[in-house]
Amino acid sequence: MISAPVPEQCNTLPMQALPGFRDFLPDDCARRNYIFARWREVARRYGFVEWEGPPLEATELYKKKSGGEIVEQLFNFTDKGEREVALRPELTPTLARVVAVHEREFKKPLKWFSIGQFFRYEKQQRGRLREHFQLNCDIIGEKDLAADIELVAVSIDILRAFGFTEKDFVVRISDREFWTDFFRDENVPAERWDDLLQAIDKSAREPREKTAEKLGDLADPVFATLKSGGKSAKLEQLVEGLRARGLADFVVIDVGIVRGLAYYTGIVFEVFDRAGKFRAIAGGGRYDNLISQLSDGAISLPALGFAMGDVVLGELINEIPRAREAIQKATANDRKIDIYVVIAKEQRRADALKQIQQLRDRGYRIDYPLTPTKVARQFQAAEDLGARVALLFGDEWPQVKIKNMATGEQQLIPTDNFMSRVESTLR
Amino acid sequence: MISAPVPEQCNTLPMQALPGFRDFLPDDCARRNYIFARWREVARRYGFVEWEGPPLEATELYKKKSGGEIVEQLFNFTDKGEREVALRPELTPTLARVVAVHEREFKKPLKWFSIGQFFRYEKQQRGRLREHFQLNCDIIGEKDLAADIELVAVSIDILRAFGFTEKDFVVRISDREFWTDFFRDENVPAERWDDLLQAIDKSAREPREKTAEKLGDLADPVFATLKSGGKSAKLEQLVEGLRARGLADFVVIDVGIVRGLAYYTGIVFEVFDRAGKFRAIAGGGRYDNLISQLSDGAISLPALGFAMGDVVLGELINEIPRAREAIQKATANDRKIDIYVVIAKEQRRADALKQIQQLRDRGYRIDYPLTPTKVARQFQAAEDLGARVALLFGDEWPQVKIKNMATGEQQLIPTDNFMSRVESTLR
Repeated sequence: MISAPVPEQCNTLPMQALPGFRDFLPDDCARRNYIFARWREVARRYGFVEWEGPPLEATELYKKKSGGEIVEQLFNFTDKGEREVALRPELTPTLARVVAVHEREFKKPLKWFSIGQFFRYEKQQRGRLREHFQLNCDIIGEKDLAADIELVAVSIDILRAFGFTEKDFVVRISDREFWTDFFRDENVPAERWDDLLQAIDKSAREPREKTAEKLGDLADPVFATLKSGGKSAKLEQLVEGLRARGLADFVVIDVGIVRGLAYYTGIVFEVFDRAGKFRAIAGGGRYDNLISQLSDGAISLPALGFAMGDVVLGELINEIPRAREAIQKATANDRKIDIYVVIAKEQRRADALKQIQQLRDRGYRIDYPLTPTKVARQFQAAEDLGARVALLFGDEWPQVKIKNMATGEQQLIPTDNFMSRVESTLR
Repeated sequence: MISAPVPEQCNTLPMQALPGFRDFLPDDCARRNYIFARWREVARRYGFVEWEGPPLEATELYKKKSGGEIVEQLFNFTDKGEREVALRPELTPTLARVVAVHEREFKKPLKWFSIGQFFRYEKQQRGRLREHFQLNCDIIGEKDLAADIELVAVSIDILRAFGFTEKDFVVRISDREFWTDFFRDENVPAERWDDLLQAIDKSAREPREKTAEKLGDLADPVFATLKSGGKSAKLEQLVEGLRARGLADFVVIDVGIVRGLAYYTGIVFEVFDRAGKFRAIAGGGRYDNLISQLSDGAISLPALGFAMGDVVLGELINEIPRAREAIQKATANDRKIDIYVVIAKEQRRADALKQIQQLRDRGYRIDYPLTPTKVARQFQAAEDLGARVALLFGDEWPQVKIKNMATGEQQLIPTDNFMSRVESTLR
């Protein structure tokens, strides 16, 4: 979805997007819209309603609660009014802010989703972008595990809508409470928990010695638990809930998942391609305390959510033939127009434009040559644009020739019966 | 479309969006999506294809060519890599940049549209935002007036799609060449032209004396021309082209329109509500030299386009009953789910979830209570969510009660014939 990587620099003005930012040419934009449409469609099947926050927020909204990598890579600056602001790195703090103020206007639980662009500033590396689009789905006001099951289920069904099966991706589910219970059993003081969780989060991506050093005296029992997998009734109940929906094959319990963000409190999960080739496709979990923390305890609502980005998802779509063919077919069809109007005689241009206007008013997608053009080139354009029929205005006037572009079949239709004949050919 | 204006400040963390930025709660978001859908639908009827640029660009992209108010109100900053960057105030320079690099990949003329968010930093005033969404439609590679006619026509038809008529809005068309010809006739040196055009642009909004001072010796002839209306064969031809499409009643010639942006070269137009209550709904024109200027003459392509923002459009929708009722009806329908599943006996929850999964797989929008809930409250939820049918899983199992929410009619259906019976009720 990235446009040509090294366009020529033809003068002193910038001829490329900023590093890490994408231009979406029509084909890229069609792919992006296809992804957005699947996201929206499945979220709505689950009764989620769409909302959106602003792309710029006060920096402190993230500094205090997000923690970890997100704050290190904040795309922040001081605005002309001396405000510390940041291009949003994630949606959850905005959601917590909006819900804390507006929650009385809505019945609980809220099931909200959002599709928007997010930003980070990090050292430039090949294939690492500074912006991406994300779907966020959140459920607010329900502490029961049923909400966690519903959330994992919608994340699975969204990926199924792209043509992926249980052979293509897996949801790794875990529970922060599993580890906080573990720390409590091991008599670890609470102030060490956050650092330990971060060390466990990174353990799969770091050398064992480095993790061991961070874990200290807990290294042996933590490694043993990661190896044996741990036992959790709550996680097994989550799997059973998905089994009732026929979705159990899409999940595995993996207590090694704890997520980088500081605000998670319970169930957490990440979605990976089965082949382990890409970074996480999606991730999320419970953040039962965030709304209360942001509102100084004024509003307390349990909450959970996940985000799925367009970049890794796009890579996986390219990797899996079923998904790749589905997006190719859909975007090719989406590009097609209904009717190309061939103006074979310039004297007929005004007549043609009158009909074009009426056909467009009925919702048909129509193109035509803006200026005098050879008829053969016009039919070529009709084909290039994927027109289903061509309408030729020429010598036959006041009859119009209609050509079915798929079959090549041609007919003459009188203008007094024009609209119904065109519509029946298109049907 | 702005959320509650003064939410309570309940703690030290920001509980509101930044000044001039909007939160889109579900109703606001549905209105926004309705506007986007009309924009997209009509642009595509005209054969425009969608693309998108990045929200952040190098500041110099705007400083050199946009001119006027846009540069004064640039939302710009220095990023962590010491780059001068700006949240985009408009799309045209990005389009010129992208087209200059990629034009060889596409047949001309290009007809491209884009829907995205734009930004400006200005002193805060009531009702003046720092962000808004804009539709941009551009035609690249066609110098003929036919392209100008097509562009004005699509702007009219987009507004018609919201339910507006010629009684609600008017397109004021003008031509910068009319004025440059005029200056040439008056022997005005070319270096004064830009300032004079800016003075004429502001003349309707400024005291006559202030405009007269800027115009100097040209004040009398310019005022006389603005009063008499001027004569332009090109503008009359444009009106005739729209008349052929039945759209002439939507336009008037008004040479007082010259547009604030520096890069326009020919036909320019602005769309206003007939009552003159609001700022411009849309505006645009020809910028035949911009691509060449940005590419240092390497690529020369005539071009024209317009932008329409969501804020003034939203105000006009609220003002005109036909448009207001259309958006209310559409967003109310859009919110509705298909099926609410009532779980009357908790023993039936697993059975219900199995059917919910299958119905969602078929694309239906379904909600249900996540936790045990009184049956009356469940039916209330079904009504609140606009469900067309309720499915009740209870004592009747293995039959399911289906209730048509509009008629109140109820039936028992066996689970072996479940899917087809549900689907026939929904049809």
